[in-house]
Amino acid sequence: MGERLKIGIIGAGRIGKLHAENIVRNVPKAELVAIADIFADQIKEWADELGIHAVTKNYKDILNNPEIEAVLICSPTNTHADFIIEAAKAGKHIFCEKPIDLSVDKVKAALDAVKAAGVKLQIGFNRRFDHNHKAVREAVVEGRVGKPHIIQITSRDPAPPPIEYVKSSGGLFLDMTIHDFDMARYLAGSEVEEVYAAGAVLVDPAIGEAGDIDTAVITLRFENGAIGVINNSRKATYGYDQRVEVFGSNGSAEDQNDTPSTRILSTADGIIGEKPKYFFLERYNDSFVEEIKEFVDAVINDTDPPVSGEDGLKPVLIALAAKKSLEENRPVKIHEIENSI
Amino acid sequence: MGERLKIGIIGAGRIGKLHAENIVRNVPKAELVAIADIFADQIKEWADELGIHAVTKNYKDILNNPEIEAVLICSPTNTHADFIIEAAKAGKHIFCEKPIDLSVDKVKAALDAVKAAGVKLQIGFNRRFDHNHKAVREAVVEGRVGKPHIIQITSRDPAPPPIEYVKSSGGLFLDMTIHDFDMARYLAGSEVEEVYAAGAVLVDPAIGEAGDIDTAVITLRFENGAIGVINNSRKATYGYDQRVEVFGSNGSAEDQNDTPSTRILSTADGIIGEKPKYFFLERYNDSFVEEIKEFVDAVINDTDPPVSGEDGLKPVLIALAAKKSLEENRPVKIHEIENSI
Amino acid sequence: MGERLKIGIIGAGRIGKLHAENIVRNVPKAELVAIADIFADQIKEWADELGIHAVTKNYKDILNNPEIEAVLICSPTNTHADFIIEAAKAGKHIFCEKPIDLSVDKVKAALDAVKAAGVKLQIGFNRRFDHNHKAVREAVVEGRVGKPHIIQITSRDPAPPPIEYVKSSGGLFLDMTIHDFDMARYLAGSEVEEVYAAGAVLVDPAIGEAGDIDTAVITLRFENGAIGVINNSRKATYGYDQRVEVFGSNGSAEDQNDTPSTRILSTADGIIGEKPKYFFLERYNDSFVEEIKEFVDAVINDTDPPVSGEDGLKPVLIALAAKKSLEENRPVKIHEIENSI
Amino acid sequence: MGERLKIGIIGAGRIGKLHAENIVRNVPKAELVAIADIFADQIKEWADELGIHAVTKNYKDILNNPEIEAVLICSPTNTHADFIIEAAKAGKHIFCEKPIDLSVDKVKAALDAVKAAGVKLQIGFNRRFDHNHKAVREAVVEGRVGKPHIIQITSRDPAPPPIEYVKSSGGLFLDMTIHDFDMARYLAGSEVEEVYAAGAVLVDPAIGEAGDIDTAVITLRFENGAIGVINNSRKATYGYDQRVEVFGSNGSAEDQNDTPSTRILSTADGIIGEKPKYFFLERYNDSFVEEIKEFVDAVINDTDPPVSGEDGLKPVLIALAAKKSLEENRPVKIHEIENSI
Repeated sequence: MGERLKIGIIGAGRIGKLHAENIVRNVPKAELVAIADIFADQIKEWADELGIHAVTKNYKDILNNPEIEAVLICSPTNTHADFIIEAAKAGKHIFCEKPIDLSVDKVKAALDAVKAAGVKLQIGFNRRFDHNHKAVREAVVEGRVGKPHIIQITSRDPAPPPIEYVKSSGGLFLDMTIHDFDMARYLAGSEVEEVYAAGAVLVDPAIGEAGDIDTAVITLRFENGAIGVINNSRKATYGYDQRVEVFGSNGSAEDQNDTPSTRILSTADGIIGEKPKYFFLERYNDSFVEEIKEFVDAVINDTDPPVSGEDGLKPVLIALAAKKSLEENRPVKIHEIENSI
Repeated sequence: MGERLKIGIIGAGRIGKLHAENIVRNVPKAELVAIADIFADQIKEWADELGIHAVTKNYKDILNNPEIEAVLICSPTNTHADFIIEAAKAGKHIFCEKPIDLSVDKVKAALDAVKAAGVKLQIGFNRRFDHNHKAVREAVVEGRVGKPHIIQITSRDPAPPPIEYVKSSGGLFLDMTIHDFDMARYLAGSEVEEVYAAGAVLVDPAIGEAGDIDTAVITLRFENGAIGVINNSRKATYGYDQRVEVFGSNGSAEDQNDTPSTRILSTADGIIGEKPKYFFLERYNDSFVEEIKEFVDAVINDTDPPVSGEDGLKPVLIALAAKKSLEENRPVKIHEIENSI
Repeated sequence: MGERLKIGIIGAGRIGKLHAENIVRNVPKAELVAIADIFADQIKEWADELGIHAVTKNYKDILNNPEIEAVLICSPTNTHADFIIEAAKAGKHIFCEKPIDLSVDKVKAALDAVKAAGVKLQIGFNRRFDHNHKAVREAVVEGRVGKPHIIQITSRDPAPPPIEYVKSSGGLFLDMTIHDFDMARYLAGSEVEEVYAAGAVLVDPAIGEAGDIDTAVITLRFENGAIGVINNSRKATYGYDQRVEVFGSNGSAEDQNDTPSTRILSTADGIIGEKPKYFFLERYNDSFVEEIKEFVDAVINDTDPPVSGEDGLKPVLIALAAKKSLEENRPVKIHEIENSI
Repeated sequence: MGERLKIGIIGAGRIGKLHAENIVRNVPKAELVAIADIFADQIKEWADELGIHAVTKNYKDILNNPEIEAVLICSPTNTHADFIIEAAKAGKHIFCEKPIDLSVDKVKAALDAVKAAGVKLQIGFNRRFDHNHKAVREAVVEGRVGKPHIIQITSRDPAPPPIEYVKSSGGLFLDMTIHDFDMARYLAGSEVEEVYAAGAVLVDPAIGEAGDIDTAVITLRFENGAIGVINNSRKATYGYDQRVEVFGSNGSAEDQNDTPSTRILSTADGIIGEKPKYFFLERYNDSFVEEIKEFVDAVINDTDPPVSGEDGLKPVLIALAAKKSLEENRPVKIHEIENSI
């Protein structure tokens, strides 16, 4: 294929803009053809500077454009499933931000539409493409840690999101831990069977008043016998704490936080290293480019995208099980969630 | 008190010998007067070389010796409670290895006897005296991590004990995790209310056949709202993995494994550091000296020993709750255990 | 200036291509208008893919193009000075790769031409823009290490260059250490007065036969009293070793190598981290973008470029002093070199 | 040998006391029989507590005691050579603190006396027995770094000694760097041929007024072609900085500073590790025990002591060459020093 993959973006908020800039600057095999956003007027100048002049308020302009082969769905979560269904019907390959939806029914409907249309679907679990986590995963795949016994994930944000976001996001498990649920499956190479979640409101009472928690330790049981544990906080004063470890029969592989520099200051006050990179845009910057490159490659070469629709469904199930576990203070099987729907 | 504290040891197995050598060589304020062991003949030569000539088969020779002010109980676990009771009645101050007993009733009887006699009792949770864990604890006490939110403990042995030991030890929670339960309380500065334990047999099926597990992730809920998580394995191929972390409102304090040297080899094969110190005798070597020094100081200065009888009871309760949690796959409150006795 | 700075590149070898790609993808304020290379035919396809269609064999096409405001000189070292002179006469701002020339006379002639023309000149000492070294420098500038006492630079390549390159490069001091001489000045914030160089042929006898050395330790005396020391090797089997340290009256600031990931593998073989990023293209990747961005900013905002022509001259003088020191096995003052010309 | 080696100590200042306590507590194969010190009265209480009752003002009481097999010479440097000669004549094996003497003639006379008497002599270069440096040395001996190319030693004290000490110590090279000169030979496995020393007074002008320097970078040329470099400071605000690196044809081995604990604090202020152990008594504590153990073993087993008289002479020659180099600002060959005597 001498040509570049022609892409349209639906939704140009923070993450949509990020993908747009990455495609233009760092994904030579793709061409960004058009952008749809309901606030089209407000993004004109930004799009112009990027060299994208086809900006529309109507996402149908993207789906009806026969030149466009693939779409990136970067709109709010509650629109994802509908856009996937429409895009699939329009014959477009789809990259969709996570989560697909907070409702398992809607997720399944979206996956069915994708299957029926025979288009490709990749979910935006970008952390799989992070250089550190990927290196840990490679150690597992190469057998260097042996059979996985314990998967441990530390995932803490530098500061809580606005309370308004907390109210509509589906809560910690669905907006934040969902990445960790995906990471746990990716690292363990096995499916989660059961979840036990312990949660607390320790960072900000307002989060509790909004019906959510801000601190959690979640235990996972995997089909292959391994045990997983995730610890989350909405607020780590020292910055974005993102570390994983796989401990197995031959040893362990773990990674550490990335820092802006490797500088070490030694003074009378102590030996002082740099804090982690501030937040996900800094820490996972390269992974956002990488996931799009792999999506583009999958479409061009007609191979399976590295993060499937099924990979989009499973973490939602785990998150719902975690919610139920927290509410009822008992371990909850994934099957319970699947069967209750 | 210008004189040195006169000590007798009951039980000269591995740990009893270790304490004996430490007292002679590294605890100037104490004098080891006599040693009792049912295999007295077999330890004569070792004791002679150490300069201790009063070796007896009969522990009563220690308790009846009016010169002896304090005893170290280093005999098998199932004799601890009885020896504590007899020693208390004999008016001796007591240092007893952990756990006091696997039965809560017997532990309470021993503590009652100590209280009635007005003698001092210290339990051998030596890890509290480890330079690394102590430094983490100090950061908590000084308020440098703020209010504790998550206490995380990694505790993995280099290799499983003999199956015979597994059969009689009370199991992983009572022989191994019991140290971590104490550490969790020590670091959190709060009592455990509820336990959820996930366990598995991943290291050796023979351990499962003996009725125990070899891999575990245990979640703790503390009275102050903090959440604790301990991960255990009977076998870490890279050695004794002993790390703790306290994450709180102001930041986190964590420690790393000690290594025989700080050497780093950089070759075409990678950047290679040393494995952790092999096992508890190497890693916690100094802490065994430190705990005896502090016990001797507490007796000499008539202050409270740093690890109380209550500190000996609590981890047994937590371990029993963990066992019940594992059996019934549900969170178990400590009160359930206390009330069921 | 609403417009983007229009740039032409002279010389599209490895480094010229790198700058071209960086400008197109990562320097939004600049526009790459044309490229000149004597092997224009061979770079056509590459340039086309980059979207640059003005490719010429004749560098004069660049200098005579009135649209072009600035040129990047990326041709072989022995052409730098002449191109600088011609470009300056043509009124172009100039970014020139290091070193300007191996002859101090030619360097001075080039600097004179730049001065006469009133254009801007920046030299390609990209390491100043490395996130690690820059962070060390910032610690110095902010006074966190106090008055500098010792500047220590470790600079080792993963493998020696081809012998043909060694024969024409001017030798280790002029092709490799020259970066370190610049770094030393940058970190010390002071000029070098005297140099003592100890060198050896330990990596490959062929390098010795070509009249060069492959291993060196160079001592620098700075005007502010500080002492510098650089250690060089043409071959570090573990990869590109690039570390600096400034030790001063208040403490030290040092950096460590960058690695492809932060993964640590713990197995029975040891605790294994990743080797440094392979070579300069990987390690200093971002710094190449950064230096061009700052050059473009300097031209657009009419400020001084961050690496001046003088900064291009000084390291050449130090390198020539180091050569003389090695030949005569004695400390050599920079003034000796300046006066001997 | 069922018996323990009977030892006398001459000189019970700080280092003599340290050895005395180590022998009593940590060297089971030796017995400390008597101590001589001109201020015998002042050390009585300390010696009593240690269980040593034979304390004398007259060192001859030690040398004339037929029971004593070996002596430790811990008196001021200017008495070392004479005591060695007398002790050798008395047939005692000798452990002597470094340096033997500041005069090469006196050193040689002492070594001749030892040779004539056929007794064993070990010099107190304790750093060879440090767990970190020893591990680096082992990597060299095992061939893991290949042929040594560059030996780099960082050796900085936390604070300068009193000016009175500076005036009489022989200066930085003879009182401080002498340890590093020994370490360089130990790590390189080769003899130093030539020295170039750059020095400065940057810490305290009073040191300069006393005729000494407080900051130095010293380049060494070894017989095997390797190059060594030592950097020294009298004052590192962050503590005792003691690191070595051997870089060779197969890679490098380096060590890092020891710290009181491995704790890492992560707060809004940064990621903060512990400072190095404060000074030589803390950092090199175990090495002082180890060197005596090996001395005792060498005497008991009639093998060569691990640090020979020759090992005591060489660093003095290197230090004198460094002094001459500093005075004359030129590289100085060791042969120059040897021949000038």
